[in-house]
Amino acid sequence: MVNENQHTCSASSSSKSDGGSSSGSESSKDSSRCSTPVLDAERHERLREKMRRRQESGDRWFSLEFFPPRTANAAVNLISRFDRMAAGGPLFIDVTWHPAGDPGSDKETSSMIIANTAVNYCGLETILHMTCCNQTKDDITGHLQKAKRLGLKNIMALRGDPVGEEWEEEIHGFNHAVDLVKHIRSEFDDYFDICVAGYPKGHPEAESYEADLKHLKEKVLAGADFIITQLFFRSETFLKFMKDCQAIGITCPIIPGIFPIQGYHSLRQLVKLSKLEVPQEIKDVIEPIKDNDAAIRNYGVELAVSMCRELLDSGMVHGLHFYTLNREVATTEVLKRLGIWNEDPRRPLPWAVSAHPKRRVEDVRPIFWASRPKSYIYRTQEWDDFPNGRWGNSSSPAFGELKDYYLFYLKSKSPREELLKMWGEELTGEESVFEVFTCYITGEPNKNGHRVTCMPWNDDPLATETSLLKEQLEKVNRRGILTINSQPNINGKPSTDPIVGWGPSGGYVFQKAYLEFFTSSEIVTALLKVLKKYELRVNYHIVNVKGQNITNAPDLQPNAVTWGIFPGREIIQPTVVDPVSFLSWKDEAFALWIEQWAKLYEEESPSRMIIQYIHDNYYLVNLVDNDFPLENCLWQVVDDTFELLN
Amino acid sequence: MVNENQHTCSASSSSKSDGGSSSGSESSKDSSRCSTPVLDAERHERLREKMRRRQESGDRWFSLEFFPPRTANAAVNLISRFDRMAAGGPLFIDVTWHPAGDPGSDKETSSMIIANTAVNYCGLETILHMTCCNQTKDDITGHLQKAKRLGLKNIMALRGDPVGEEWEEEIHGFNHAVDLVKHIRSEFDDYFDICVAGYPKGHPEAESYEADLKHLKEKVLAGADFIITQLFFRSETFLKFMKDCQAIGITCPIIPGIFPIQGYHSLRQLVKLSKLEVPQEIKDVIEPIKDNDAAIRNYGVELAVSMCRELLDSGMVHGLHFYTLNREVATTEVLKRLGIWNEDPRRPLPWAVSAHPKRRVEDVRPIFWASRPKSYIYRTQEWDDFPNGRWGNSSSPAFGELKDYYLFYLKSKSPREELLKMWGEELTGEESVFEVFTCYITGEPNKNGHRVTCMPWNDDPLATETSLLKEQLEKVNRRGILTINSQPNINGKPSTDPIVGWGPSGGYVFQKAYLEFFTSSEIVTALLKVLKKYELRVNYHIVNVKGQNITNAPDLQPNAVTWGIFPGREIIQPTVVDPVSFLSWKDEAFALWIEQWAKLYEEESPSRMIIQYIHDNYYLVNLVDNDFPLENCLWQVVDDTFELLN
Repeated sequence: MVNENQHTCSASSSSKSDGGSSSGSESSKDSSRCSTPVLDAERHERLREKMRRRQESGDRWFSLEFFPPRTANAAVNLISRFDRMAAGGPLFIDVTWHPAGDPGSDKETSSMIIANTAVNYCGLETILHMTCCNQTKDDITGHLQKAKRLGLKNIMALRGDPVGEEWEEEIHGFNHAVDLVKHIRSEFDDYFDICVAGYPKGHPEAESYEADLKHLKEKVLAGADFIITQLFFRSETFLKFMKDCQAIGITCPIIPGIFPIQGYHSLRQLVKLSKLEVPQEIKDVIEPIKDNDAAIRNYGVELAVSMCRELLDSGMVHGLHFYTLNREVATTEVLKRLGIWNEDPRRPLPWAVSAHPKRRVEDVRPIFWASRPKSYIYRTQEWDDFPNGRWGNSSSPAFGELKDYYLFYLKSKSPREELLKMWGEELTGEESVFEVFTCYITGEPNKNGHRVTCMPWNDDPLATETSLLKEQLEKVNRRGILTINSQPNINGKPSTDPIVGWGPSGGYVFQKAYLEFFTSSEIVTALLKVLKKYELRVNYHIVNVKGQNITNAPDLQPNAVTWGIFPGREIIQPTVVDPVSFLSWKDEAFALWIEQWAKLYEEESPSRMIIQYIHDNYYLVNLVDNDFPLENCLWQVVDDTFELLN
Repeated sequence: MVNENQHTCSASSSSKSDGGSSSGSESSKDSSRCSTPVLDAERHERLREKMRRRQESGDRWFSLEFFPPRTANAAVNLISRFDRMAAGGPLFIDVTWHPAGDPGSDKETSSMIIANTAVNYCGLETILHMTCCNQTKDDITGHLQKAKRLGLKNIMALRGDPVGEEWEEEIHGFNHAVDLVKHIRSEFDDYFDICVAGYPKGHPEAESYEADLKHLKEKVLAGADFIITQLFFRSETFLKFMKDCQAIGITCPIIPGIFPIQGYHSLRQLVKLSKLEVPQEIKDVIEPIKDNDAAIRNYGVELAVSMCRELLDSGMVHGLHFYTLNREVATTEVLKRLGIWNEDPRRPLPWAVSAHPKRRVEDVRPIFWASRPKSYIYRTQEWDDFPNGRWGNSSSPAFGELKDYYLFYLKSKSPREELLKMWGEELTGEESVFEVFTCYITGEPNKNGHRVTCMPWNDDPLATETSLLKEQLEKVNRRGILTINSQPNINGKPSTDPIVGWGPSGGYVFQKAYLEFFTSSEIVTALLKVLKKYELRVNYHIVNVKGQNITNAPDLQPNAVTWGIFPGREIIQPTVVDPVSFLSWKDEAFALWIEQWAKLYEEESPSRMIIQYIHDNYYLVNLVDNDFPLENCLWQVVDDTFELLN
């Protein structure tokens, strides 16, 4: 919320100025990493409890506001931005309600679906805005029921924009935010945490500043849990407002809304709509540099940093809410300079955690989806509950169908032309495919001078952990063992280890060595001979696209491949190699050859037929070395296989 | 089953001759150890599948028959015998049906309850015999329903003894075992595995040997899964019978019933009732030594061993069924000499596993009941399902009430006089209690020259694993840290380790150091000061009988203290320190002071008041050292505490 009136405007201005460059210019983080604390006390708390805990402990925090994008491509970019900004550890994000954009619909750009994605796929605690004027009770109730169904737990209750000039209050209708607050509490009891808006200078339509304070108190008395304020330009404005609120008995948290000035035009438009006055000393600086975007942004960052420092130093403020205008750079810069951008390289679990209440206890997944966490969440969204500590038995429900699955947010972030540059405008044989895999591993440019930064199975560059295996991976990919997932064995490293650590400190993490790859039937035949020697040590699953399946897994039980031991906790076993899910993953993994790679080329073209040939004839193999305290034997298995072939 | 006719007789003869000496003369095994394989493929199989698997793999096996005891004390002894004989790895045991003894009742000596105890408390695959003549359909159905409810899965269907001389077949009644087989299949479908009796010489009441073979085939066609035979004296008798069965198309397993001769009188009585003829060559040996029990038993063992060898060597026999007459020595001796007594020192899990189908997936328990597994099973028998891989959260159901709990099979195996010798005829102060604890640890005789082989909290001598800590335990018990449970830390020992190993081979086992003890409030005060230094490393729970509870456990979550990593498996986490169950355990642990110790003395006597004082004023403490890869710090914690007190 910047102002209830101006979502459309800022949406269009910012998606133009910031949208295009985001996926290239920002450093891409491993999307399977996420700072949401899943193993700590916060995981079962609701937002208002988290806020209270932070206040009590004196920890400072921040939150981020975004608006829904206008196009599907902009949505893909926004979601990548969520993932990147999640790394800094926001307490929550919020998504504004865009009445003109069918905000409660299932469209990929609707407020509802963007908030759903933030919660379920990006693991972010999220507030969904909702406005009430010009809407029926039934509409509102329907939106709230849908939000609840999707796992949203927090609503920002707003009045919204009267339509037309001659607006009059409706009897029994929703005329003010307080009506919406009351409605939520009466229909949904205490299910939602409710946030309301505060106006440090008074709402522009209010009779007076004092009258507006009284309205705010009514909203709190009706059941609001905390307040986020409209933007302001001087820290004194907020601090006075806060004291005035306290003086009339408002005791809930009041979070200042911070607006880092990012450009001349966006500031002007904002001011016009919010009816705020820009202080003369700010105008004096901006006017002379109004055509220099970088200079204005630098000034905006300086201004925001110094205002935030004053707020934090006052002792009255614990959290800061940022109006990002869907851009990253300025807000991230302010947060880093304030020292509250809290980038923790350690993962809570070795995969992206969902913030859906139903999934809060989820602590184990098959390893296969390690690089495609959003796909995994999507394909399991209908599950009633999540394995409580172990992967569990055969009574687990089925995976969602593959046909449901090619959704906009599972699309590659790179456009077709970029993919062709990386994966080859023209393939000359299976060896040219080997080369693409090899370049992805080494980071070296391909023969046309382009770096391969993603693959159909991995949307991000190699994970730091995988880099430990780089040399061996390069060697085997060159020879047609096309690796798509791997991890080294780990025998009790501290959980704070910067490369392989995860979870709370004071613990120890463990892994069994894992290797997953596509390869030809010729190599599989040799591999199977070699594996006889390793029968008791290595578990394998080998399957082709038709489902021919060769395995030595006992009773089709899952095999734990990552686990952690922590003080005062049960064992956490976050990834398993599960033979049953492997067959679901197999369908997805083979389909990606066709959907993401083959279809880049014309039908009947030689390049397309090469990929089709691999799809039809190669096998997908996974290997686990069970003897984790010894040196990883999987490289020896592969070496023996090549030797047998020679 | 020896013969359907003679349960009463053999029951009385053997409980006289063998009952008294059993608990003293046999070496006492750690009752928390058990050979039932819980981690292997067999755990979800039914008995007939286990039998088939053994036959296919060529593994030889044995089973043991017992009859219900006549007194509660004999029942306690029989259950100890189950525990000891379970160590040899029988495929199953069976419990005969004793029509005169109210066999389906809830009495602690009934056939039903003895079979229930074998399954649920001793973890033994069990067949319950059931006879049908002179009973109504409703009675039979009621018995079968009860058996099913208790977790029994196997029935031996027998005709039983007609009552009176002038017995006539009843129309529509149960006149033959085949009627019972049909009834079970029609009322319970395939739920039960059904066993029937075979008579190698023909049933004494049958018209002819051939007619009896036809009756046997009818029983198999009606749904019996396998056959156990009446005893016989020559291997040829059985082998001919088996060939004759096969010739008329009986293809199910036929298990020879082996009767090691154990005494002159029991043999004579048996022969009279079963109408079998003892071969002249056996009579010739026995008659001259008929008053020398030991000589007859030795001869019986020789005879049984050579007959069993012939049977096994024939290649037609894979399993042997022993009529034990509720005695251990002869049968165990035969089995050991045949090399099929399979005493595996490794545990499937570090506690006694129940064979109840509902509990087959159970793989985690609180550590507190490690020495009282039967109490734990009893107190959780009403639970609907068992934690599937982790201890689970607070939604676990409550423990059974303590008032239900003092059952005959939870009684100490030692009589009052023995307990007084061990724990002191007269106590002179808290120090004399310290001395009892210390003697239990060291194994040295107490000042009256008696060894302390059990304690109210531990019915067996110190576990081998605990012996690793003997020196430190002795030191702290002398000074009033009265330990009742402890384990050393283990950082990845092979699962085949003879002392700390458990589970299938090829795995690694781990433990966090654990110490649980009673101690005075003075020591607790000092301990709490010391524990501040170890805040991040040691988790503690300290509670007194009134429930005053001091802990640093995060969010009252369970702490895993034993876990194992196995090839192709999920992590197994068999024991946890669970703060919630600790409060249930606390009630039990404090009550044992009074029920088992204080009540040995007269009311108002000084000895009784000393125990009462400890019960009222001491604390129960548990400590976990989370840093399992480092040297156990708990001894340092205790040393620091004593130092602070000086």
